Amino acid sequence: MHQISTASYDPIVMERFFNPSSVVVVGVSRMTGEGSFNILENLIAFGYRGRLYGVNPKATEILGVPCFPRAQDLPEVPDLAVITVPREIVPQVIRDCCEKGIRLFILVTQGLAEADERGAVLQAEFMAELRRHGARLIGPNTLGTVNVFDSFSSSFMPITRKEPLGSAIICQTGLFLATDLGPTTGLGKGVDVGNQADIGFPECLRYLGDDPRVEVVALHMEGLRPGEGREFVRVAREVTARKPVLVYKTARSVVGAEAAGSHSGSLAGSDVVYQAAFDEAGVIRLADVDDLDDSVKAFLHLPPMRGRRVAVISASGGGGIMAADACEDYGLELARFSPETMKGLRELYPSWMEPGNPLDVWPASIGKLYPPVFQTCFELVASDPNVDGILCIGGAFTLAGLDVGDFVVLAAETRRDKPIVWWLQGRKAVSIAARVEASRKCAVYPSADRAVRALARLARYHVDVKGRNEEPLLRPEGLPPAPEAAASPATSAVDPAGPAVGGGVDGAAAGFRLLESYGIPVARWATAATPEEAATAAGRLGFPVVLKAAGPPALHKTELGAVRLGLGTPEAVVEAGRDIVTRVGHLGLGGVGLLVQEYLPDGHEVIVGSRRDPHFGPTVLFGLGGIFTEVLKDVAVALAPVGPAQAGVLVRKTRGHAVLEGARGREPADLEALVDLIVRFSWLVTDHPEIAEIDLNPVKVFAAGRGCAAVDARVLPG
Amino acid sequence: MHQISTASYDPIVMERFFNPSSVVVVGVSRMTGEGSFNILENLIAFGYRGRLYGVNPKATEILGVPCFPRAQDLPEVPDLAVITVPREIVPQVIRDCCEKGIRLFILVTQGLAEADERGAVLQAEFMAELRRHGARLIGPNTLGTVNVFDSFSSSFMPITRKEPLGSAIICQTGLFLATDLGPTTGLGKGVDVGNQADIGFPECLRYLGDDPRVEVVALHMEGLRPGEGREFVRVAREVTARKPVLVYKTARSVVGAEAAGSHSGSLAGSDVVYQAAFDEAGVIRLADVDDLDDSVKAFLHLPPMRGRRVAVISASGGGGIMAADACEDYGLELARFSPETMKGLRELYPSWMEPGNPLDVWPASIGKLYPPVFQTCFELVASDPNVDGILCIGGAFTLAGLDVGDFVVLAAETRRDKPIVWWLQGRKAVSIAARVEASRKCAVYPSADRAVRALARLARYHVDVKGRNEEPLLRPEGLPPAPEAAASPATSAVDPAGPAVGGGVDGAAAGFRLLESYGIPVARWATAATPEEAATAAGRLGFPVVLKAAGPPALHKTELGAVRLGLGTPEAVVEAGRDIVTRVGHLGLGGVGLLVQEYLPDGHEVIVGSRRDPHFGPTVLFGLGGIFTEVLKDVAVALAPVGPAQAGVLVRKTRGHAVLEGARGREPADLEALVDLIVRFSWLVTDHPEIAEIDLNPVKVFAAGRGCAAVDARVLPG
Repeated sequence: MHQISTASYDPIVMERFFNPSSVVVVGVSRMTGEGSFNILENLIAFGYRGRLYGVNPKATEILGVPCFPRAQDLPEVPDLAVITVPREIVPQVIRDCCEKGIRLFILVTQGLAEADERGAVLQAEFMAELRRHGARLIGPNTLGTVNVFDSFSSSFMPITRKEPLGSAIICQTGLFLATDLGPTTGLGKGVDVGNQADIGFPECLRYLGDDPRVEVVALHMEGLRPGEGREFVRVAREVTARKPVLVYKTARSVVGAEAAGSHSGSLAGSDVVYQAAFDEAGVIRLADVDDLDDSVKAFLHLPPMRGRRVAVISASGGGGIMAADACEDYGLELARFSPETMKGLRELYPSWMEPGNPLDVWPASIGKLYPPVFQTCFELVASDPNVDGILCIGGAFTLAGLDVGDFVVLAAETRRDKPIVWWLQGRKAVSIAARVEASRKCAVYPSADRAVRALARLARYHVDVKGRNEEPLLRPEGLPPAPEAAASPATSAVDPAGPAVGGGVDGAAAGFRLLESYGIPVARWATAATPEEAATAAGRLGFPVVLKAAGPPALHKTELGAVRLGLGTPEAVVEAGRDIVTRVGHLGLGGVGLLVQEYLPDGHEVIVGSRRDPHFGPTVLFGLGGIFTEVLKDVAVALAPVGPAQAGVLVRKTRGHAVLEGARGREPADLEALVDLIVRFSWLVTDHPEIAEIDLNPVKVFAAGRGCAAVDARVLPG
Repeated sequence: MHQISTASYDPIVMERFFNPSSVVVVGVSRMTGEGSFNILENLIAFGYRGRLYGVNPKATEILGVPCFPRAQDLPEVPDLAVITVPREIVPQVIRDCCEKGIRLFILVTQGLAEADERGAVLQAEFMAELRRHGARLIGPNTLGTVNVFDSFSSSFMPITRKEPLGSAIICQTGLFLATDLGPTTGLGKGVDVGNQADIGFPECLRYLGDDPRVEVVALHMEGLRPGEGREFVRVAREVTARKPVLVYKTARSVVGAEAAGSHSGSLAGSDVVYQAAFDEAGVIRLADVDDLDDSVKAFLHLPPMRGRRVAVISASGGGGIMAADACEDYGLELARFSPETMKGLRELYPSWMEPGNPLDVWPASIGKLYPPVFQTCFELVASDPNVDGILCIGGAFTLAGLDVGDFVVLAAETRRDKPIVWWLQGRKAVSIAARVEASRKCAVYPSADRAVRALARLARYHVDVKGRNEEPLLRPEGLPPAPEAAASPATSAVDPAGPAVGGGVDGAAAGFRLLESYGIPVARWATAATPEEAATAAGRLGFPVVLKAAGPPALHKTELGAVRLGLGTPEAVVEAGRDIVTRVGHLGLGGVGLLVQEYLPDGHEVIVGSRRDPHFGPTVLFGLGGIFTEVLKDVAVALAPVGPAQAGVLVRKTRGHAVLEGARGREPADLEALVDLIVRFSWLVTDHPEIAEIDLNPVKVFAAGRGCAAVDARVLPG
C-alpha cells in the first residue's frame, strides 16, 4: 500500500510547495498561447516573482525563461520541480532532480499506480528514489498548488489571478483550481493532492490550518489513503477548534466509488465511517458544489451564528413559507420575537394583521413607502435578543430613491453581531449581490433554501463544533492494561493463524473470556465436549438453559437448528445435544463442541459490533436486533474508542432507539448498562488490532437497573 | 368554506383573464414612476394593446388613460376589472362593476378572509355579489395574470417583457411573476391565484393545459382548497398525458404550514397525501426554486429522455465521480457502452487506460488537441443505442481556435434524439450558457448534481408518466352496489349521530358486517352480552378463542387488559369475561358487551386504514404493525379507490415490506390476499363518505395461499 508520511510533516516544506523561491518546470512545452497548457506561461501570467527555469532538451529559452537539457545542468538548485513528462521517463527525471539536490516535486503526469501494473511499477521506482533522498512529492495526476497571496501557481490550466480571499481548498480534481478558483467566492490557497503518492490531506490541512491568512478550509475528497484516517481526524480536530473545515465528499455512491478507483486510485471505503469520522473531527459535510460555494461565502463574510433561531423578513408571504420549510429541513428554528419587538411591529401593521415570523412586510407597507417600512422592521428584528441570524427576502430594485443594495450594505454594517443573508430577486439582484459581497458584510443567495442552508452551516460550526464539550476519553475501570502498557501485546485471545474466537469449544470460551476481561457482562456459560457433559454443566448453571453448537464463526447456527432455547431438564439437554452433534457433524467441519448458557428470555435484543475500517481502524456499530438491522439497516457507527456520552449519541442515532426508551408500552431498557457495555467493547476492539470483525449478537438489554448481557459473540481475525 | 366553482370552467372566461380586449383598473393611483406600483403604468410598459380605463374619483386622466369617478361612468363594459382599493370598499366596488355589466375581476387587495373576522365578512359579501351575477374572480391577494404572448399583465410590480417562452406558471406568490418572471428561463403565461376565493389551480391548469403554445406548466402551490383535490388530480392527469406538469409544493413543514394559513389562507393538509395525489396525477414534484428553474429549462429545451441510462463525458475525472454519485441519488443509471462504442474509444485512449463511464476525456487528450478528442468521444457515445441521455462536463474556453460554445451547440444540433446537458465551468461559462440556451438545443447547469437532476426529471416524465399503463379501476366482484347505483345510500352501517361502529356490541357487529359485505375476510366472530353467552359462542366458534370488550372505539382495550388471547375452555372464557366486564365497567361508559373471535396466533400483523382527507377525500394507508408504524412511522398512503397494481405499489412503498416477502427466514406472506383486501377496503371507504376514519388493526396476513383476515376494526364517523 501507500507509504504514509504525515508523521514527517514539516511546515517549511509545505510553505515551499506553495511559495517557492525558485522553480524548474521539467518537460516544459515550447508551444505557448491558448490551448498549449504551458505551465511556465501560466506562472508568468500569474505574477510569479521567483526565479524560473525550464528543462527541455530542444530549447535554450522559452518565454524568456532559460531552459536546459537536463536538471543536472541547472545553474542552481531550485526549491521545487514541477514535472510534466511522459510516465515512462518520470523515474529517470526524478532521479536526475534528486541528484541535483532538488527535494520538492509536483508531479503532473497521469497513468501511474492508479492506471495499470506498469504504472504501479514506475510509481514504486520513483517513490523509492524520493525516500532515498528524503524528498517530498505532490501528485501524481495533479495541478499542484495555487497561492494567490504570494502569486504562485503550478497549474497547467490558465488561472486568472484575482484578489486573494481567506478561503483555501484541498481537492482531488483540478476542476476547483482551474476554473477561476472553484468556489465563485474566490480563493487564497489551493492544492490538488491528486493521487496522493506522498503528501495527502492531513499534511495539507495542517499547513492551511496554521496559516493565519486562511479563515476557512474546504476539502473536496474522493478518499483518504488506507491507514491515514486517524491522522486526518486528529489534524482536523485541531484545525476545527480554530477555523471551520468543510468537506464535499464524493465517491459516496457505489458507482462513484468505482469511478474513483480508476480516477485517483482512491479506495472510497464506507461512507458511514467517513461520516462518523467527520462528526468526530468537527468537519462539516456539504451536499454539492453549490453548497461549497454558498458555505465558503458564509464563513468568509458573516459573523458567528450563536444559536439556531432565525428571523425571516420577507417582502413576499410565499417566500417566507419557503424559508420556514427550509428551516425545518436544516435543523434551524423560527425565532419567537420578544415582547418589545412585537410591540414595535404591531405599530407598523394594519389592525387585521398580527405580525409573526416569517414577517411578511408587504401588508405593513400598504399606503406607505415600502423601503423605510422594511428597514424599520429590520431594525426591530435585528435588535431582538431572541434572534441569532436573519434572512431577508426581497426584490432588488431602486424605490423612491432608496436603493435596496445600499440598504443591504447599511443593514449589515450596523449589525455585525449576527449573520444576515439575503435572497434577492429581480433584474438588479446580480449587480447588488456583487456589490454587497464585495463589501464583505453579508451574503446573497439565489433562494431561501440556500440562504437558510448557509445559516445552518454557520450554526453547525459556531454552536456545535466550537461549542463542543470535550469528553475525556478515559479507559473504564477494570480493563486489562492498554497494549502499549502491557508487557506483551494482549493478543493471546485471538490467534490469526488458528480458528477464530467462537470457532470450536476453545474459541468460544476464549471469546467469552476476552469479553469478561473487559468487564463486559456475558450470559453465564460453560463449554462441554459431549451432550452428557452439557447436562452436568446445565445443572451447575441452573435450568432452563440454552444449548448451542460451538462451531466455526461462519456457521449459521440458528438456520441449522443448532440452537435450542429453554431446555428445562438434564434429559432435554442430552437429547438436544445429540441432535445438534448429528446436524453439525454432517457438515464435516470436524469435532462439534457444545456451549451451555443460562436462558434469558426477556430483554431487548441489540447488536454491538465492530469492523476494522481500512481508513479509520476500529469502529463500533450499534443497532437493535431483528428487523431493525436485518431489514431496515438501522445501525449507527462511531470510531472506537468512545466515551459514555458518545456511546449514548450512538444509541440515539438509530431510528429504533425509541423502543429502548419505552415505546409501545414496554418498560424502558437499562441504557446505562448498555452504554457501559459499548464503551468497554470499544476499548476491546481498540486494544486488539488482530480482530478484523466482532459482533455481539444479540446483547440482551433488560429493564432499567437490571443490566445487560452478551449472549453470542462472533469474532473474525484480520 | 370556500365555494368551489371548477365545475363552471369556461375556456372563454379564462382566455379573457389572460387576454382581455379592454380593462379597467379600479383604484388606480395618480402616482407614477419607480416605487409607485402603478398597474396602468406597468400595463402600458408591457405593451398592452387593448382599450384601457381607470377608476379614480380624483382624476380624469392618468398617463393618457381616461379615468372616471365610478365604474358606472365607464363608456363601455370592459372585459376585466383589476381592483386595488382598500378592503372596506371592495364589496361596493364589485357591486358597482357588476351592475355596469363587468363579469371578470382580478382582486389585488389583501386583508380579506385570510386575515381576520372582518375580512371574512367582506369576502362573503363580495362573493355573494359575484355569484348573483355569475361573475368570476382571481384573488384576492394576487398580482393576477401575465401573458407574454399577447402582452398583458395585471401586475403592480413592474415586469420587463421578454420574448415569450413555452413555459407557464400557476403560483400563490407574486414573487414568480414579479421578478422578471420567476424561472430564469422566462415565461409564456403566468397566474398568481392568490387566496383562491373563486378561481383556483384546477381551472388555471386546465386552461394552460389546453393552450398549444404552452409546453410545460409549473405550479408553486401552498395548498389547494378543501374539497377540490380530486378535481385537481383529474385535470392534472389529463394535462400530464399531453405535457409535463411540475410542482414546487411549499408549506410542507409544520412551521411552513402555519405560515401559509396566515399568508394565503391555505390549509396545507397532509404532505404525504399531497404526494400520493401528485403521484396519481403524474405531477412531478420539485425540491426548490433551483429545481424549478432547472427543470422548466430542461423541458423547454431538450428532447425526450426515453430511458434512465446516462453517459457522462467529462474533462475531469473528479467531475465524473460527482455525476456518478448524482445518478445514484436521482435514480438514473450509468449506461454500459456498446462493444462498438468501446472499440472506438479504446483507439483514442493510451494503453494504460480502459475507457469507461464516466468517460474521463483528459487521458485521451494527452499529446493531442483536447477539443477534437472530446468531440470524437462525444460522437461515439451519442451514437450508442445504450445511452438515453448525455451529461458533458468541461471547461468553457476557446482552445486552438475551437470554441467550446460552438461545439456545444453543434453537438446539440446534430443530436436531437437525446437530451444533452452540460456542466460548464470557467470564466466563459455564463456567456456560453446564454448563447447555447438561446439556441434552444441543450441546457447548461452549474453543477453535475443539478444537470443530472434535470435529466432525472425528464426521465420521470417521459418514461414513467407518459409511459404509464392505465390500470382499469374496476369494482371487485362481490361488492355492494355503488352508492349512486343503490336505491338508498349504503350508510346504514354507520350512523354519524350514534355511537361509532365498533362502539358497543351492535357497533362491533355492524362494523364486521360492513367489512364482510365488501368481501373483506374477518376473523370468525360472535357477540355476547354476558360472559356466559360468550362461553357458548366460543363453543360454536371452536376453542381457543380471543375475548375482547366491545367498547367505544377510543377505548384502549389492550392497555386496560380488556383483550384475552388463546382462551381454551368455556370456564376460561367466563372468568376472563367477568374480569373484562369489571375493568371496563369501572370506567362508567355504560353497558359492556363482549366480542368472541377465533384465535389466530400466526401471521404477520399489518394495518390497513383510511382517513378522509379534507382536500383529497378518502385515502388508504398501509403499514406493517408494531414498531413499523408505531416507532418508525413506516406507512404508505394512496388515494382511494385503488386497483390491484396500485395496492401492490402501496405495500412495496413501505420500508418494512421485505418482511412480508420472506426476509429473516420467514415464509413469504399471502400478498395476493392482502392486495385484494386493500382493494376492497379502498372501495368501502370510497362508498362511505360518512366514515371519517377507519383502521383495520391488525390484519393478519398468513403464509402464501393461506389468506388474511381483519382481527379488529375501529371506525369513527365524520
